[in-house]
Amino acid sequence: MQKKNLEYIERLRQAMTKHGIDAVIISGTDPHQSELPPLHWRGREWLTGFHSVNGTNGTAVVTADKALCWTDSRYFIQATEQLKGTGFSMMKEDGPDATDLIDWLVENLDKGQTVGIDGMTFSIAYAQRLQQELSDNGIALNDNFPQFDFIYPERPQRPQNKLFIHDEKIVGETVDSKMERIMTEVKAELANAILLSSLDDIAWATNLRTAGDIAFSPIFVSYLFIGEEERTLFIDEGKITPDVRKHLELYNIGVRSYDSVLDFVASLPKDCRLLIDPEKTARGIYDKIGCTPVFGGAGVAKLKSVKNDTMLSNLATAMEKDGVALIRFFMMVEREYPSGKLTEVELGKRLRSLRLADPACVDESFAPIIGWNGHGAIVHYEATEETDVAIEGDGILLVDSGGQYTFGTTDITRTVALGKPSDEQRRDFTLVMKGHIALASIKFPKGTRGAQLDVLARQFLWNDGKAYYHGTGHGVGFFINCHEGPQSIRLNDNPTPIVPGMVTSNEPGLYIEGKYGIRCENLVAAEEWKSTEFGTFLQFKTMTLFPFDLNLFDTTIMTDSEIEWVNSYHQHVRERLSPLLSQEEASWLDDKTRILKKS
Amino acid sequence: MQKKNLEYIERLRQAMTKHGIDAVIISGTDPHQSELPPLHWRGREWLTGFHSVNGTNGTAVVTADKALCWTDSRYFIQATEQLKGTGFSMMKEDGPDATDLIDWLVENLDKGQTVGIDGMTFSIAYAQRLQQELSDNGIALNDNFPQFDFIYPERPQRPQNKLFIHDEKIVGETVDSKMERIMTEVKAELANAILLSSLDDIAWATNLRTAGDIAFSPIFVSYLFIGEEERTLFIDEGKITPDVRKHLELYNIGVRSYDSVLDFVASLPKDCRLLIDPEKTARGIYDKIGCTPVFGGAGVAKLKSVKNDTMLSNLATAMEKDGVALIRFFMMVEREYPSGKLTEVELGKRLRSLRLADPACVDESFAPIIGWNGHGAIVHYEATEETDVAIEGDGILLVDSGGQYTFGTTDITRTVALGKPSDEQRRDFTLVMKGHIALASIKFPKGTRGAQLDVLARQFLWNDGKAYYHGTGHGVGFFINCHEGPQSIRLNDNPTPIVPGMVTSNEPGLYIEGKYGIRCENLVAAEEWKSTEFGTFLQFKTMTLFPFDLNLFDTTIMTDSEIEWVNSYHQHVRERLSPLLSQEEASWLDDKTRILKKS
Repeated sequence: MQKKNLEYIERLRQAMTKHGIDAVIISGTDPHQSELPPLHWRGREWLTGFHSVNGTNGTAVVTADKALCWTDSRYFIQATEQLKGTGFSMMKEDGPDATDLIDWLVENLDKGQTVGIDGMTFSIAYAQRLQQELSDNGIALNDNFPQFDFIYPERPQRPQNKLFIHDEKIVGETVDSKMERIMTEVKAELANAILLSSLDDIAWATNLRTAGDIAFSPIFVSYLFIGEEERTLFIDEGKITPDVRKHLELYNIGVRSYDSVLDFVASLPKDCRLLIDPEKTARGIYDKIGCTPVFGGAGVAKLKSVKNDTMLSNLATAMEKDGVALIRFFMMVEREYPSGKLTEVELGKRLRSLRLADPACVDESFAPIIGWNGHGAIVHYEATEETDVAIEGDGILLVDSGGQYTFGTTDITRTVALGKPSDEQRRDFTLVMKGHIALASIKFPKGTRGAQLDVLARQFLWNDGKAYYHGTGHGVGFFINCHEGPQSIRLNDNPTPIVPGMVTSNEPGLYIEGKYGIRCENLVAAEEWKSTEFGTFLQFKTMTLFPFDLNLFDTTIMTDSEIEWVNSYHQHVRERLSPLLSQEEASWLDDKTRILKKS
Repeated sequence: MQKKNLEYIERLRQAMTKHGIDAVIISGTDPHQSELPPLHWRGREWLTGFHSVNGTNGTAVVTADKALCWTDSRYFIQATEQLKGTGFSMMKEDGPDATDLIDWLVENLDKGQTVGIDGMTFSIAYAQRLQQELSDNGIALNDNFPQFDFIYPERPQRPQNKLFIHDEKIVGETVDSKMERIMTEVKAELANAILLSSLDDIAWATNLRTAGDIAFSPIFVSYLFIGEEERTLFIDEGKITPDVRKHLELYNIGVRSYDSVLDFVASLPKDCRLLIDPEKTARGIYDKIGCTPVFGGAGVAKLKSVKNDTMLSNLATAMEKDGVALIRFFMMVEREYPSGKLTEVELGKRLRSLRLADPACVDESFAPIIGWNGHGAIVHYEATEETDVAIEGDGILLVDSGGQYTFGTTDITRTVALGKPSDEQRRDFTLVMKGHIALASIKFPKGTRGAQLDVLARQFLWNDGKAYYHGTGHGVGFFINCHEGPQSIRLNDNPTPIVPGMVTSNEPGLYIEGKYGIRCENLVAAEEWKSTEFGTFLQFKTMTLFPFDLNLFDTTIMTDSEIEWVNSYHQHVRERLSPLLSQEEASWLDDKTRILKKS
């Protein structure tokens, strides 16, 4: 089939000529800087042909004679393939042969030429850097060139899914309370109002959710203004049900149309000091603001990251539901594996349907990563019809998955042996688990950052000449995004300290190229441990409930306290899950949580 | 005795009036931003009366009606005492009641007033921040107010100690080679010449040293210019011996008078792009530069921090000499302790004379910290006639000391029990040692930063609800400063990775207020371990040679591999030191390095 991208490029070049644009930069995101934008904002995928259901990371540049698409190393192979015959060439955003997009523009444009962007799909911070570097080189920026309005008549409309209320009993805090806490942050930054653009912040602040706007996350397309006397949600009105309207009225939140946000910020009174996050707010919004903008607002993400006791107790319920689904899944795997008919893709379908069998599970929290042997060594492997393999013979299966439960978001990775594992596999698994246990067990003074704790999970691998290079832990939302900031546990520094109530993953791993991958992931919640003359100490409480594969432990390299940690965790899993299981399932769990003994 | 400081303040105010200065800021450092400046630049100590032999940290401000002296929390008690009756009040630089000096000036001065400083004693970076904040508030800065020229006739002259050559055989690199490597760094920063102000950088680059300019460090007062065709040392010519002159001629280094550096930078040709470090170069130098200044130059400290194989092999010799001196010291302590006549001050004198008995030991590398019981809990304790106590009864003695050997700089802390240690003391000591061992044993991939490794030394204390808050490791110079950058192993992040050849301390501790202090410090050198499919890994080689006190280990909380580390380290110490000892000393060492067994 002939690709139509050459025709799309031609349409774009005509629009550029008409508007006096010499080069256009086309963003891969939306006005909310979403990682996975709705289809409406996937024009870059349509134009370039570089796409996937779960979204891709890429930025395109088109000039009179060049069409380029930048992407990162996760996508080099896929993009090269998909861009064939589209007229676009791939450019590398990272790695040794990387080209900086702005540097490229500066080198390839002449003084007096003009770069066009759709200011609604670039953050203030990026657009400012862009404008500075272009203007240093005599090149102009036109930030009001919404190219897809001119060339993409078949563009999907914005998602129109209905909202629903995320029960206050589940989240343990009223919208009023959240708004008041946000206003305290706003005033601390010497502002008197805030405009939230980030969809996860808005969902958290309003106790509202939807399904379908954004893949794998129940957040919805909108803006939220909070001032001293006014609260306004900017949203397509068709998304508001009568119940949701009552909820909004109860908390004095007015509703205006999504598009009217621009006129709204333009007409704010002069004495309004409007807090906006330059990394999350669109340049197109900034251009319109009629009052004094104040850059800041990162405090909202910090509020969101701290889960209260009600949320943590509900997350424990979500973990029970997830544990039950996983028990049914892994029992099925053990039962059907001898047939040789199971494949990675099939396992993905089965896992999804087992999770969604619970009415509280609205969706998966990301596309599951199910890798058999060598595929497990590809950190972000996505099984497709083309890559799918049968689960047969001896091997190791890595399953990284999660659910969006109304009681909280889960994210768990288990690595299990099918058939007989090798000594090398058992040693590697145990080294990963020793790191997992060291991080799960650490006590640490208030003020400690994730990057300080990170080595605890890596030390045993390093001492064996092995390593993984991904992060050890990411923040996890509460029935919002599976990945959220501001904290992390990574090699690189992050100034945010871990505070009680933060939920973070603990997921060390090891990847032997072409052979197998190991990752052991639980979610942990930080909580206070105790205060001593040396300060206040915190600890992690492991929230996830599912056993680790006892066949993969090599107890000869474990300390007594590490073995004790495994036994104690397994006892806890058994006690929490057994009452929810059939007799057959409970026996299976008893066996999987039998006592691990020093051999 | 009546203090004369009120008279000095009066002299200063007259000079201020004469020069149109409304407030003066008086620096505590010299034109080289030295931590311990020579007496010539201790005018702030003379003026305020807040002083000590080893130098103090403080900055004074005098206005028409106020005289203030800022200092940090290490000195609050001492400064409060010493400032009594001087007319100066103490201001806190850190801690909960801190006042920012520049904020204070802005609040207490009026628009149109003028602040004066001696630009030679403030860094470019500090003066720029100062000027910006003052000018934002309509206050002028006069950076050419060398107040002590007007009011301090009794000022000591600059130190006139003779230089000597640090043997090329010991440092393993010629001055030419160092200059070429510096020029490579200079060109990488798009400059073509560099002016070094930092005295440790200059000592390193020239293979020259002295004794007496700066306490505890063999560096000397000078500037060094390195260009493509010219190398010039700015120094008081009386410091140059005939041998040193030959050495300088051999490496084409011209000599000009110390003060002529200002005319020199003023007359540099227009096409000179002069690299200067804004944190280490005086504002007074910057003001005079007649060519294009380029800010940078941190690369020289990185070159200096990496010790070559010759240096590391010589450092091993310095460690032998230091180990022998410490054996004689601790044997004396054991012998004389029962008399009850030993005191902290007496021990300091004995230790100094035992170290300096070796002709290769030029000086101590810092004022030793010798703390008995409760004094050991004061992290930077300095025993004086007023604080001195007798070493008697049961207790713990902390000895932190080091030597400036021509073969390298040492820094070691040992904590020993005299009499019978308590179970609590043994547990605490062992927790500190477990951290020391974990850090000493870790393997880590290339690119790892010290802050990532820091928790390894703290983890066992944290898991016991205990903590220390000082750094775990600082860089150590080679017959230069005992503290040098750029690497560190600390709670706070430092972007510098640990690379092979860097020498760093490993010194976890624990301080029980009023009771005892524990610190266990060795120096370690980073070296390559091996390369695997997961990257290149480094490890630490412990350089220090002296046993840890076997009476303080609680083996019930140690793993087999920790016990094995102690035994293997002690065997190494015994093998290296025994051949250098008398028979009596060797037997003593045999006993101190006997096998530690699991109890």
